Amino acid sequence: MKYYEYDTDDMIAALATPWGESAIAVIRTTGQGCIEAISAVFIGKKNLDKSRPYSMNYGTIKDPGTEKKIDEIIIGIYKKPRSYTGQDMAEIFCHGSMAGITEILRVLRSIGFRDAKPGEFTLRAFLNGKMDLTQAEAVNEIIKSKSIKAMDLALQRLSGTVFSRIDHIKNLVAEILAEIELQLDYSEDEADPEASLDKGKIEKAISLLEELSFSYRIGKIIQDGVSVVLAGKTNAGKSSLFNLFNKTERSIVSEYHGTTRDYIESFLLIGGIPVKLYDTAGLRDSDNPVEEQGIKKSIEIIEKSDIILYLIDGNVGLDNDDISWISSLDPNKLIKIWNKADIASEKSPDDFINISALTGKGFKELEEEIKKRIGAEKIEISDSVVIDSERQKNLIDEALKALSNSIVSIKEDMPLDLIAVDIKEALDNLGEITGEITSSDILELMFSKFCVGK
Amino acid sequence: MKYYEYDTDDMIAALATPWGESAIAVIRTTGQGCIEAISAVFIGKKNLDKSRPYSMNYGTIKDPGTEKKIDEIIIGIYKKPRSYTGQDMAEIFCHGSMAGITEILRVLRSIGFRDAKPGEFTLRAFLNGKMDLTQAEAVNEIIKSKSIKAMDLALQRLSGTVFSRIDHIKNLVAEILAEIELQLDYSEDEADPEASLDKGKIEKAISLLEELSFSYRIGKIIQDGVSVVLAGKTNAGKSSLFNLFNKTERSIVSEYHGTTRDYIESFLLIGGIPVKLYDTAGLRDSDNPVEEQGIKKSIEIIEKSDIILYLIDGNVGLDNDDISWISSLDPNKLIKIWNKADIASEKSPDDFINISALTGKGFKELEEEIKKRIGAEKIEISDSVVIDSERQKNLIDEALKALSNSIVSIKEDMPLDLIAVDIKEALDNLGEITGEITSSDILELMFSKFCVGK
Repeated sequence: MKYYEYDTDDMIAALATPWGESAIAVIRTTGQGCIEAISAVFIGKKNLDKSRPYSMNYGTIKDPGTEKKIDEIIIGIYKKPRSYTGQDMAEIFCHGSMAGITEILRVLRSIGFRDAKPGEFTLRAFLNGKMDLTQAEAVNEIIKSKSIKAMDLALQRLSGTVFSRIDHIKNLVAEILAEIELQLDYSEDEADPEASLDKGKIEKAISLLEELSFSYRIGKIIQDGVSVVLAGKTNAGKSSLFNLFNKTERSIVSEYHGTTRDYIESFLLIGGIPVKLYDTAGLRDSDNPVEEQGIKKSIEIIEKSDIILYLIDGNVGLDNDDISWISSLDPNKLIKIWNKADIASEKSPDDFINISALTGKGFKELEEEIKKRIGAEKIEISDSVVIDSERQKNLIDEALKALSNSIVSIKEDMPLDLIAVDIKEALDNLGEITGEITSSDILELMFSKFCVGK
Repeated sequence: MKYYEYDTDDMIAALATPWGESAIAVIRTTGQGCIEAISAVFIGKKNLDKSRPYSMNYGTIKDPGTEKKIDEIIIGIYKKPRSYTGQDMAEIFCHGSMAGITEILRVLRSIGFRDAKPGEFTLRAFLNGKMDLTQAEAVNEIIKSKSIKAMDLALQRLSGTVFSRIDHIKNLVAEILAEIELQLDYSEDEADPEASLDKGKIEKAISLLEELSFSYRIGKIIQDGVSVVLAGKTNAGKSSLFNLFNKTERSIVSEYHGTTRDYIESFLLIGGIPVKLYDTAGLRDSDNPVEEQGIKKSIEIIEKSDIILYLIDGNVGLDNDDISWISSLDPNKLIKIWNKADIASEKSPDDFINISALTGKGFKELEEEIKKRIGAEKIEISDSVVIDSERQKNLIDEALKALSNSIVSIKEDMPLDLIAVDIKEALDNLGEITGEITSSDILELMFSKFCVGK
């Protein structure tokens, strides 16, 4: 078979750990003859090709040309089919030296390995029947997990929960199709679809698919998180509140330099959901072109964010500018905050949350409100199947459309063979999700998003 | 034994691969009972504590509190004393997911592991007699290698070349000390040191130590490389030449933002030696404070560089500013370049290298000149022992000083027991190099420079 315009059993190699100085690096190899090939550049107690499966072998890797030693390594051996890819595999555990890694990869190329493409190890696992496409995608989703909740869901998908669910729905749809085909084969006269078809089965399939399609939104939030932006005029206390968030939650802060003004971004977990928190330049009309640029950038970030925390300095109170800003923002995204409430001379309107970014008073209430807006409570999924793949979501929606069409056709007494076309389309869509039906284009697109070495 | 204020056989764990998303991450653990401890949170075909040494074991790691699965992993098992640290070891190969890594480390802490300090695995290897201190340092030097030549030398040191050389010298010095002590024991009268001592042995030791001490300079160049800076007035063609270097050699370019003006830095290999190449702001007197800052930064970089490439635009020729700049620079570091030589209206003075940064003409000659200045040819070391540790170099120099003192004392007919003090000091210094004599302070200082997980 050829995918990626390449063989799928030739020898490939890739650095599977991040590029950089570290204690250990892992170079992964697989393919027909990979153990024998590496054996020829390995100096150890025994020949690699005679070593047991699942064994680690200490030795030295050498340059086959100069016979010079390159690094002291340990090689892990897996024999087909009991390996990740289903093929022979050798994993090289070497020193995390950039010079050494480069040199080992050079030697591997010189003895017939080529550089693996992103996701090519998992592609082979799929092609060799070690996993279906939903499990393959789960591998990548595990790696990209930004919270333990996301990791947990991806791990469930890796164990085959999405596959089972889809398979169950597919069986329902296949039964419907079989019924139609039976009627098409045996009845000379035009049958009455409404009377002869079990619409309940189709409706059941639709409801299960709707549930899965809806779970994508939850999956996305858990995986990618939501963005929260601090807005308001200069001196409203945005930076103090930003700091309070970062003190309270474990966070990574990074500064971003725009063309003219900086903004700051920080990653936190609120209610187990990853949150990207932005502190922006103060909103005010300005004649200064530099400041104007900063404000433009702030507005851009505000418009893209999922939740907007609009701060008012309680000592100053609302002015016309604030009222105009607030009215321009999406009320579903907006949380209004009355800052410096403890010492404020002005009383806050009812729909504001009173806080003091300095003392932390009212912060808990604010956090609860944010959690409510994220819908963090609803995301307390336990055993439900949650998908996180746009590809899967799109195919599920296609299948849904086809099944809904079939329901309409049945109601409108359309001919059975026309209805069969819709049902067949839904079945194909479901087959594509698990990879039963696929094309090299789809595989290429899907695996290109993977890490190299996976 | 207690070093680092910690046990040296308690259970430690560390991420041994760089922090980031990747196909695979490695979490390393060692210490008394580590395999049994991890076995309790591992779900696999068989118990980890019953698995063979050097085996890889596929399974799942779980949270011991919630019994929730955290990741699918492979665990490599090493049994003492046949492991890197000389203790039981378990290496966890997990998905390179930041959420997953964090969670596995959390679970390990919850079952009694503590976070390993930098170099603590190698410290244990040393304390358990798996390697001497020169080999331990070589481990770190391998990881820090920036060229294959540096890697090669560090690997030789790991195999014990420095240890053997030092050991050889130490034996020479110990023989001298034994002779002195024999004479001190048996001769009632004051012996004549000049007549009775084998000065040749001391001189031999001195010459071997001098060779090693000198090799440090070479080791440093091979490991850290040299810095080369492009200097000259605006429009002399510095950026074109910078680009030519980066096109010709494989390089990594990074931009550095100073307070006001940028400079660019790029890493290349010239003649196998790592070179840090800087492109700086043009040198010219300026009243503009912003530009002045850039020029100040340029001068700082020029002063710190090992080699200065001073460019003249051949179409403009030398002016008084150039002459004044050139005369202010260290002639040993300076290479003068006549750029745009192919179309230049002015002829270059004899001591300039003619090049065209645009067409590449003359670039080879420039490279040869740079190699000559670096001394790249002289660095064609093959079997000689080259050190790369400042600690070793300092101790060698101390030993040299003590031995030289003893030679003077012998010539001056000083009493034998005074000479013995010098020889004993040299012996102690040599013992410190290999770690025969050491203190926890020295170990702490040395290993704190290591990677975590090594």
